[in-house]
Amino acid sequence: MTETRYDVIGVGNAIVDVIASCEDAFLAEHGIEKDAMTLIDEARASELYAAMGPGREISGGSGANTLAGVASLGARGAYVGKTAKDQLGDIFRHDLTAAGVDFDTAPLEGGPATARCLILVTPDAHRSMNTFLGASTEFTEADVDADKVAAAKITYLEGYLYDRPEAKAAFARAADIARQAGRKVALTLSDSFCVDRHRADFRELIKGRIDLLFANEAELKSLYQTEDFDAALEAVRADTAVAAVTRSAKGAVIVAGTETVAVSAEPVDTLVDTTGAGDLFAAGFMVGWAGGSDLEVCGRLGAMAAAEVISHYGARPEIRLAELAAERGIALPG
Amino acid sequence: MTETRYDVIGVGNAIVDVIASCEDAFLAEHGIEKDAMTLIDEARASELYAAMGPGREISGGSGANTLAGVASLGARGAYVGKTAKDQLGDIFRHDLTAAGVDFDTAPLEGGPATARCLILVTPDAHRSMNTFLGASTEFTEADVDADKVAAAKITYLEGYLYDRPEAKAAFARAADIARQAGRKVALTLSDSFCVDRHRADFRELIKGRIDLLFANEAELKSLYQTEDFDAALEAVRADTAVAAVTRSAKGAVIVAGTETVAVSAEPVDTLVDTTGAGDLFAAGFMVGWAGGSDLEVCGRLGAMAAAEVISHYGARPEIRLAELAAERGIALPG
Repeated sequence: MTETRYDVIGVGNAIVDVIASCEDAFLAEHGIEKDAMTLIDEARASELYAAMGPGREISGGSGANTLAGVASLGARGAYVGKTAKDQLGDIFRHDLTAAGVDFDTAPLEGGPATARCLILVTPDAHRSMNTFLGASTEFTEADVDADKVAAAKITYLEGYLYDRPEAKAAFARAADIARQAGRKVALTLSDSFCVDRHRADFRELIKGRIDLLFANEAELKSLYQTEDFDAALEAVRADTAVAAVTRSAKGAVIVAGTETVAVSAEPVDTLVDTTGAGDLFAAGFMVGWAGGSDLEVCGRLGAMAAAEVISHYGARPEIRLAELAAERGIALPG
Repeated sequence: MTETRYDVIGVGNAIVDVIASCEDAFLAEHGIEKDAMTLIDEARASELYAAMGPGREISGGSGANTLAGVASLGARGAYVGKTAKDQLGDIFRHDLTAAGVDFDTAPLEGGPATARCLILVTPDAHRSMNTFLGASTEFTEADVDADKVAAAKITYLEGYLYDRPEAKAAFARAADIARQAGRKVALTLSDSFCVDRHRADFRELIKGRIDLLFANEAELKSLYQTEDFDAALEAVRADTAVAAVTRSAKGAVIVAGTETVAVSAEPVDTLVDTTGAGDLFAAGFMVGWAGGSDLEVCGRLGAMAAAEVISHYGARPEIRLAELAAERGIALPG
C-alpha cells in the first residue's frame, strides 16, 4: 500500500451555521422539530431567519466540523464539499483552510447560494437545525478528487449526503475509490430523521462497505427499528467491524468484534450549545483510530473533543485540541 | 417640544465583525497596532483575512452595537448607516432589526461590499481592529432621515464618522437637525487614533454642539494633549454639559458642571473579548440619561452593560440587559 497524505478525508455538505438563542416556545410557534435537522427551502429559510433573533455566523457542516477537529488534533485532514461563489462561501473556505484542512473543491457559479443552517439553541443547550442546502446540492461525483481519497487512511462520509441523489452518487464514488485503494471507510448516520429517510439503504451500505460507523443512541435504534439499545448494539456489532455509539451524558460505547469498550463523557462546566458534539467525537475517535490507538484511547479523544465543542456556541473547536489532549494526558498517535 | 418616538438614534458605520483569536506575535508579524482601530483597504483586508485563523461573523459597528444595547435595555432605538446589497449587509440588517432597533437606511447597490472589521483578540482579551469601510463610506447626508432624528431624545454620533468627508457631512446634518428640534446630541470619541486624526475638529465640535460626550481615558488625554488625567477631566468639564469617561477596570468618572460621580467597574468572571465595552457603556448610560435617571444610575447601567459584553466574543449583548438590570436591582427609567 502506498504512503498516505491524509489521516482523514471528509465528504459532506458545506454549510455556514447561523446560530441564535431562543425559548422553547419559539420552536413550537414556528413548527420547528426540536433536536432534529430539518431540510428547508429558500422561502422557509427567509421566513425563519426574519423571525429569529440576532445570529452569529460560524462555519459548520457536519463533516467539515469533524475535519476541523481532526486538524486541531494535529492530524492531516482534507475535505470535499460544494460552496457557492459568494460571501458565505468565502467564509466557509477561509475558516476550513485556516483550521489547517486541505480544501479546494471549486465553488459553484451561477447557481444557488452557499448552504446555511439556521440553528436555534434553547436554554437547555439543545440545538434544532434548519438547513437550506443551496449550493451543496450541486455537489457531484466530478467533485470527488480520486487521488486525494486514495491518499487518505480514512474516508469519512456524512449520512446527510443521502438526502440528495447527486450527493449520494459522490458519496458512493468516494467509498469505492477508498476501498479500491485499500483504505478504510467511515460513515456517520448524522440524524435519526435522516436514518428514517434512508434506513434500507443505510443497512445495506453498513453491511457491505463501511469499516467504522458513528451513530448516537437514537440513530442506532432507528436504524434497527428497536427500542432496545442492547439489541441494536448487538445488531451493529454483527454488521460492521467497528461501531462507536455516543449516548450524550452517558458517554459512548464502542463495539468491535467481540470487544466492547465503554467511555465516560467528559464533564463540562457550562453546557452552552450541543451543536457539533457528534462531529467532534468522530474527529477525536478517527485521529486515534487512524494512528493505531486502542479503542479506549480513541473513545477518550472523542469524548474530550466533544466536551470542548459543547462548552461554547459553534460546532468547531475554539482551542487547539492537541494541547488539550496533552493537558489531559491522553496520548495522541504519531 | 413634540413627543419623541425614540430614546436614542445612532448614526454610524455599519460593519460586520470577523472575530478570530491570535497570539500577540501575530499582531507583530502583520504590523497590527494593538488595541487600536486601523483603517485598511480591500487588498490589506484580503491579505489579513487570509492570514488569520477561523472567524466568527457577528454584526458590529460601534454605534450599531450601542443601539443594540439600548434596545436590549427596553428603550426605543433607531439607527442610520450604510450597508451594501450583499450577504453581509443582509446579516447586519437582520441582526440589528432582530435586536429591536428601527433601521431602514437603503442598502447601496453596485458599489463596494458591506464594511467589515477584522478583529484579532489576544489571550489578554484585548482586541485590535482592522476596518475595511467598504459601503459605509458611501453614507451621505441624504441617508439621514430628518423626521427620525427630530423624533429622538438623543442623537448619538460616532467619532469614526469623521474619517470620511461624506460621513462627516451626514454627522453634521444629524447634529443640526437634533439641535433645531431641541434634542440632545451625544458623541463618542471612538478611538485615541481617531482623536489624533481629528483633534481640532473634535474640540471645536465639543465646545459648540455636543451635550453628552463619551470618551475613554486615552481618548480624553489625546483630545487635550495631556498625560494628566485630572487636567483632562477639568478641561472637558468646562467644554461640555456632561462627559462620561471610562477607565477600563477602574470604572468610569462622570463630570457635569460642578458634579463629579465615580462609578466602579462591574466584576467579570471571565474576560473574553473587550470589543464593545465602550459601546455598551454608552448604551446603558444613555438609556438612563434619556429617562432622567441621576448620573450614578446612568453610570451603573453603563458599567453593567459593558461587563456583559466583555464576557463573550462579539460586541452586542447576548442576554436581555433589561432583565440583568432587574436582577441587579438597578432601576430602569420609565
